[in-house]
Amino acid sequence: MVKKEAVLHINTEDFIYPVERNKLIVRLRAAKDDLAASQIVYFSRTTLDSKKVCRLVKLYSDDLFDYYEAGIEFSKVARYQKYFFILSDNHGETLYYSATGFGKDIPEDGFFEFLYTNPGDVVEYPEWSKGAVYYQIFPERFCNGDTSNDPEDTQKWGEPPTRENFMGGDLEGVRIKIPYLRELGIEVIYFNPIFKADFNHKYATTDYYSIDPCFGSNEEFGNLVKELHENGIKVVLDGVFNHTGIHFMQFEDVRKNGSASRYYDWFLPCKEKEITVTHKDYECVGAYKYMPKLNSSNPEVRKFIVDVMDFWIRQYGIDGWRLDVADEVDSTVWQEARAALKERYPDIILIGETWGYGGMLTSAKRLDSVMNYMFRDALRDYFGYEKLSASGFDHRINRMLGLYKTETHNVLYNLIDSHDTERFLFYCNGDVERMKLAVAFQMLFVGSPALYYGDEVGITGDNDPDCRKCMVWEEEKQNKELFNWYKTLIRLRKEHAAIRKGSYRSILSSDENDFLAFERTLENERIIVMLNKGDSVFEMDTRGMEGGTDLITNEKVKSATDGNLAIEPCSVKVIKVKN
Amino acid sequence: MVKKEAVLHINTEDFIYPVERNKLIVRLRAAKDDLAASQIVYFSRTTLDSKKVCRLVKLYSDDLFDYYEAGIEFSKVARYQKYFFILSDNHGETLYYSATGFGKDIPEDGFFEFLYTNPGDVVEYPEWSKGAVYYQIFPERFCNGDTSNDPEDTQKWGEPPTRENFMGGDLEGVRIKIPYLRELGIEVIYFNPIFKADFNHKYATTDYYSIDPCFGSNEEFGNLVKELHENGIKVVLDGVFNHTGIHFMQFEDVRKNGSASRYYDWFLPCKEKEITVTHKDYECVGAYKYMPKLNSSNPEVRKFIVDVMDFWIRQYGIDGWRLDVADEVDSTVWQEARAALKERYPDIILIGETWGYGGMLTSAKRLDSVMNYMFRDALRDYFGYEKLSASGFDHRINRMLGLYKTETHNVLYNLIDSHDTERFLFYCNGDVERMKLAVAFQMLFVGSPALYYGDEVGITGDNDPDCRKCMVWEEEKQNKELFNWYKTLIRLRKEHAAIRKGSYRSILSSDENDFLAFERTLENERIIVMLNKGDSVFEMDTRGMEGGTDLITNEKVKSATDGNLAIEPCSVKVIKVKN
Repeated sequence: MVKKEAVLHINTEDFIYPVERNKLIVRLRAAKDDLAASQIVYFSRTTLDSKKVCRLVKLYSDDLFDYYEAGIEFSKVARYQKYFFILSDNHGETLYYSATGFGKDIPEDGFFEFLYTNPGDVVEYPEWSKGAVYYQIFPERFCNGDTSNDPEDTQKWGEPPTRENFMGGDLEGVRIKIPYLRELGIEVIYFNPIFKADFNHKYATTDYYSIDPCFGSNEEFGNLVKELHENGIKVVLDGVFNHTGIHFMQFEDVRKNGSASRYYDWFLPCKEKEITVTHKDYECVGAYKYMPKLNSSNPEVRKFIVDVMDFWIRQYGIDGWRLDVADEVDSTVWQEARAALKERYPDIILIGETWGYGGMLTSAKRLDSVMNYMFRDALRDYFGYEKLSASGFDHRINRMLGLYKTETHNVLYNLIDSHDTERFLFYCNGDVERMKLAVAFQMLFVGSPALYYGDEVGITGDNDPDCRKCMVWEEEKQNKELFNWYKTLIRLRKEHAAIRKGSYRSILSSDENDFLAFERTLENERIIVMLNKGDSVFEMDTRGMEGGTDLITNEKVKSATDGNLAIEPCSVKVIKVKN
Repeated sequence: MVKKEAVLHINTEDFIYPVERNKLIVRLRAAKDDLAASQIVYFSRTTLDSKKVCRLVKLYSDDLFDYYEAGIEFSKVARYQKYFFILSDNHGETLYYSATGFGKDIPEDGFFEFLYTNPGDVVEYPEWSKGAVYYQIFPERFCNGDTSNDPEDTQKWGEPPTRENFMGGDLEGVRIKIPYLRELGIEVIYFNPIFKADFNHKYATTDYYSIDPCFGSNEEFGNLVKELHENGIKVVLDGVFNHTGIHFMQFEDVRKNGSASRYYDWFLPCKEKEITVTHKDYECVGAYKYMPKLNSSNPEVRKFIVDVMDFWIRQYGIDGWRLDVADEVDSTVWQEARAALKERYPDIILIGETWGYGGMLTSAKRLDSVMNYMFRDALRDYFGYEKLSASGFDHRINRMLGLYKTETHNVLYNLIDSHDTERFLFYCNGDVERMKLAVAFQMLFVGSPALYYGDEVGITGDNDPDCRKCMVWEEEKQNKELFNWYKTLIRLRKEHAAIRKGSYRSILSSDENDFLAFERTLENERIIVMLNKGDSVFEMDTRGMEGGTDLITNEKVKSATDGNLAIEPCSVKVIKVKN
């Protein structure tokens, strides 16, 4: 008996969507290990008699579900496809699943239907962004390249960070460290806010059109983008549109003129329909009264936001936006921003901040990607806190993959920490070996791995302010082993398209041995990754891997008759399988 | 053991959404009859220690699932709510369900989270549109009020319709029939297309800014809207933006100038990336080359569409749009139209045409409502074709309710037929009694019931062209019994807020007796509807209904000790329960 209650497919863009105008991806969820096969039967509503059948493939499995997928191609534009599913269980039972439910007979009506693929319906992302390596810079703390723009009371570089103090980091500091970033191999910088704003974090924006003078000038920024581009590094800025600072001109006007201000509706009173916004009762971020929330449901505000986003792309050629607190902004903003900006600049990336599942942002023609904190949580809980088993971790990862479209996986911003969390090494209690395993998983996993500045040299620290320490530039204080580990993994990612943007499939998770294996595949390239987090050697059957190469050590995998492959405790093997 | 695979809640707008800035609706799906109770535990992320608990109520049940819901209110704007669920089965097992999955212990992290309620996030609909009765007019066939605008070769009124012929119906015909519409009691007219266009159906538009001269002038239309409004009747127009006619100026320009036309990108070539649109290879509706598809992914086209929609609201005060083939249009159009128009005219209604589940249109800030063909299908299959059992019908209806938001139910356009289907009486094989039962279900169900002109007087017919017969105005040819049945039911709907916009709950479905009962409730008003489609008397236990009134016969319900309530074969009782 097929477990009907577990089967999930709805005729919405989350379950059937085009990746080209003549190619559809179809998704179906079923109970774990329940189906022997699942097939889609599809036919044009104008040619009912010529049905086609396509088998769905099981791509992901968590503790409860298997996630199936098929890609079906058409000679012309995909349109007017009626369809149903044939589900076969392991005991010879076959069930038909259509829009009106389940039946034992081939349905005669009540089919699912896919209507039409407009050019704008195609789910696609900039080619450069698939699997690209990000590097997040908190500008005040990365490098002080120009002391002439230092704020008053700038501390000596490396002093303990507080929520108030300044260290003098700036854009010139980033510029002079380009060689460092090139050596590391990163491909995109995500800058925390750099517009004129209060506080060292610059999330309380005063002027969305100017670089903060402590960081440099607009001209300097333009030159920096140019130089980064010449060095093959793209630039993503932090768009803080959920709220402003209290010195934002429009907010100052409201504080001064109250409801007579022409910007009165740009902000939000605390209570519904209450119309007095004084300096006391406006909505703000959490309890931070210095960051009043913008009323993103106001069309004028939406236009302001899209204009700012457009300005920095048009004027300075930035490559995308990371959107702060994107999940608290009226999503109409993202629909409008996407429609306007992607039309003009199809190659930009739009990444929303959210801390859970981000389907609200990645679906319905809103953003491309999100900061994937679900990924961070899983890695923290397995490699850091060690409160997950290998299979528990594997299920969390597969569940996440099952929630997002497969195409989206390639552009998810897979972080392990940020300016808003403890450092990953802190989760690991300072154990660099475990951190190295986590980084290996991150760098060899599908999606866009994101480094938070300084992680690569072993900086640790509790949450804000301790996660915002000054970058360590004295070579003797840098953890070179960790740096080289990052460097090696980034190199592998660049050299092997299967790592950069191949598909992902879990192969093995052993709770007894605390061991994981997965594979990455693209066309003819197949790479198998094995992570041994346990404290004993894991012996892996090498059948299928014979003659393959360990990309880290360059050793060849011996024949299976010569015994199993030994993966040492706390180590990683990355085997490129011989074709 | 709770059936975990059946439990569904995701932190998206389909499962948790505001209906006021300080009130959230939470939805959870579970296996049928599986839970003894389900509760949500929620707490602000800033005050972790003050948790609140709310019990979810089972609202709908189909063959596989129960659909639970809770409304939770806040003293201020709903924001920053972390939450998880407590699910209890019938054997004393309790399970906790949070964003990371199921557990036996109260979760300590990995919660679901609801972020923030922007004013524009609130799911709300114009008050007038909740439960309003629509009347669909196919203008060429309703009434010929002005013979001076008749097209050449106009047939005698009542001649058999063909796909080509004209009968002379027009706006003046509608105007002179206002007293008839008032008597019937309908509240909104949905007009099939009335803009200048080819063919009698006018779906091949030539000019989106002019009334078709065979129907009248723009001025006449303005006067008609005014007169209808004065008579308490609202007006919804058919917006045909998926495609145009071949005489649409922009298309003529493309036919003439090919790729040199400035409107070249307004249409779609058949093959991806093929850039020659000649008169042969453009995309069109089905195989109808005289209706070329608009490229709704083109921002210029989107602006054109929104401008047209705005024009008829601004200039003539129409109350909304029914959007033709809405499910084939790039949904960005609906996002933009909604954002622009609802801001200016919050009281308009936007209804999309679709033939299956319309979640793609009713979610993600697109449209308000859809033509609910799922409803039509269920009524056709139960009352018409009689291929569904009472419980099968009940499950189909409940499944549909479980798919749409409860707030959306009130504005779903619940049709039983249209210009694109057989007449409902045709499904019933001419059996007016069964049609009367279906109409009773439609009129007493939650949502906006929609009449297709002439159904009320017993017009029948196969699909197009036979469903587009001339309206029958000779009183002796009208089925007065049916007309009065409609009139009575519409009156009940207007007199009883519980019918108009109360909640819906199935009470009973008996396959043996082919009998259904459901209740409609609003505040203190409770109405129980019983439909006996079987061929024997059904005896209903009157406990709880004692002293209530049958709204159709005005009879009082006797005490239970005096015996059961007898519902005759093929009859309906509508009992208003005494408070």
